Amino acid sequence: MSLVIVGSLAFDTIETPQVRKERIIGGSCAFSALAASYFTSPRIVAVVGEDFPPEFIDLLNRRGVDTRGVIREAGKTFYWEGRYGEDPNQRSTVRTELNVFQDFQPRLGRDYAEADILFLGNIDPDLQEDIRSQARNPQLVAMDTINLWINTKPEPLKRVIRQVDVFFANDEEVKMIAAHHNLITAGRRLLEMGPSLVIVKKGEHGALLLGREFIFGLMAYPCEAVVDPTGAGDSFAGAFLGFLDKVGTFHPEDIRKAAAYGSVMASFTIEDFSVDRLVAVSSAEIEERFEALRKLVAF
Amino acid sequence: MSLVIVGSLAFDTIETPQVRKERIIGGSCAFSALAASYFTSPRIVAVVGEDFPPEFIDLLNRRGVDTRGVIREAGKTFYWEGRYGEDPNQRSTVRTELNVFQDFQPRLGRDYAEADILFLGNIDPDLQEDIRSQARNPQLVAMDTINLWINTKPEPLKRVIRQVDVFFANDEEVKMIAAHHNLITAGRRLLEMGPSLVIVKKGEHGALLLGREFIFGLMAYPCEAVVDPTGAGDSFAGAFLGFLDKVGTFHPEDIRKAAAYGSVMASFTIEDFSVDRLVAVSSAEIEERFEALRKLVAF
Repeated sequence: MSLVIVGSLAFDTIETPQVRKERIIGGSCAFSALAASYFTSPRIVAVVGEDFPPEFIDLLNRRGVDTRGVIREAGKTFYWEGRYGEDPNQRSTVRTELNVFQDFQPRLGRDYAEADILFLGNIDPDLQEDIRSQARNPQLVAMDTINLWINTKPEPLKRVIRQVDVFFANDEEVKMIAAHHNLITAGRRLLEMGPSLVIVKKGEHGALLLGREFIFGLMAYPCEAVVDPTGAGDSFAGAFLGFLDKVGTFHPEDIRKAAAYGSVMASFTIEDFSVDRLVAVSSAEIEERFEALRKLVAF
Repeated sequence: MSLVIVGSLAFDTIETPQVRKERIIGGSCAFSALAASYFTSPRIVAVVGEDFPPEFIDLLNRRGVDTRGVIREAGKTFYWEGRYGEDPNQRSTVRTELNVFQDFQPRLGRDYAEADILFLGNIDPDLQEDIRSQARNPQLVAMDTINLWINTKPEPLKRVIRQVDVFFANDEEVKMIAAHHNLITAGRRLLEMGPSLVIVKKGEHGALLLGREFIFGLMAYPCEAVVDPTGAGDSFAGAFLGFLDKVGTFHPEDIRKAAAYGSVMASFTIEDFSVDRLVAVSSAEIEERFEALRKLVAF
């Protein structure tokens, strides 16, 4: 199988109550591609500016990520600045600069267009729809979104939702789109809009996966050392889809394991800033947490 | 084994966005005793006023609850009025009237004092400590509390916490008592204060059980028809302790199953007002949800 990920490569400035980190590597594509790289060799589509470090592209390549779809444009890389409260679930956006992302028209090259699994990371839904139309015959299309697009582009967003198999969002966003306060009901409404699987990301409370005949609830791997939650959701999605790409089947038991690996990879991401922990983890550590998570929930 | 439950019997007035219910049966003891009654024959200690319906005591007796410890005093029954928002997790207390609870001095009669398991439901920590001292040689003592006591009686509360084995509270309360924003760290601090097991109730997100060498995470049984969340935590605690009283051992696998039954009984409670659904459930329905919950989380 092959997995194509479309998303952002970015500079993030992150402020937590303890420390401020300026212009570290971020973006949905960075986290999801690296998380996926432990299971398969993802191909990525993104745009960077002249200021983006070639060393990070090299790092992606060393981890088996196909970066031929990364375009370098004149100008500055997408920039996001966020601040977290004492409770790491409290996040506020301080500043967003689209920069080279402003005029990004992602193109799927010939072999990219043959993707078996396509992940439309969190970007403008109009771009997501455009990319969706370029994929020839994907077996599975997944998308992620955030409240920005729910508020500013509800109609394009709903059009994309109709065209995907797997929809990722956090609990508040699922409730917003479905206009219902009960998460299960909201999730079922989203299923009626198109996707066959809705994956509700609940941060420290884990994830809820809802299909038409399928429901799976997963605890988050318990972390005491939460340094920076940025990228947790993207890491979850990347590992989830990377695992499915590896096994090549979408049976309920695959979906459950894929989500557990998603939770495990997210737990590594949040233990350090940027992708620092995510790139340093070993396969043995991943398997160890996977087994620990399985024990954590079994009764 | 034998389980003694000390708590409140009350009249609740509940307002949801849909409906207002006046003076329905409530109180921690009502919910926890009924939930426990599906597993064992609990003995309860509580006080009611002259206005409390003898029919409810009869109902408890028919469910095998030993009500010899319920005292009827001159005056009015404890009264609580609460309001829920569209999101059932948003609860505000409109009014509390202690009434006969004001001067309640609970006494454990001779056979009650021989309890193997003692549950100190959510009442004034000074009363909890007094009752704790009356139990002769309990194998397991559990307690519940709410933010009212954390704010108004922090020192008596900490004294009781030192004398119990199992501590129940919701996630915000655990963080408040431990003065730490990370739930795992907060839970571990509470373990250092005395209990060998901390059970964090997280409402729709389930529960987290933390012991010194033990961790267990449990999803909530997914409910679409949440009518009134009042009593969910008490039902969880009652079923948890009722199941342990039934099996008579406290092995990790018992603790896990007990928590799953707790989650199942709480899921019934919130599907109707007061104890209406809780008293109408069958053993087959309980087992069915238990198995569904097991499937929901397995991977």
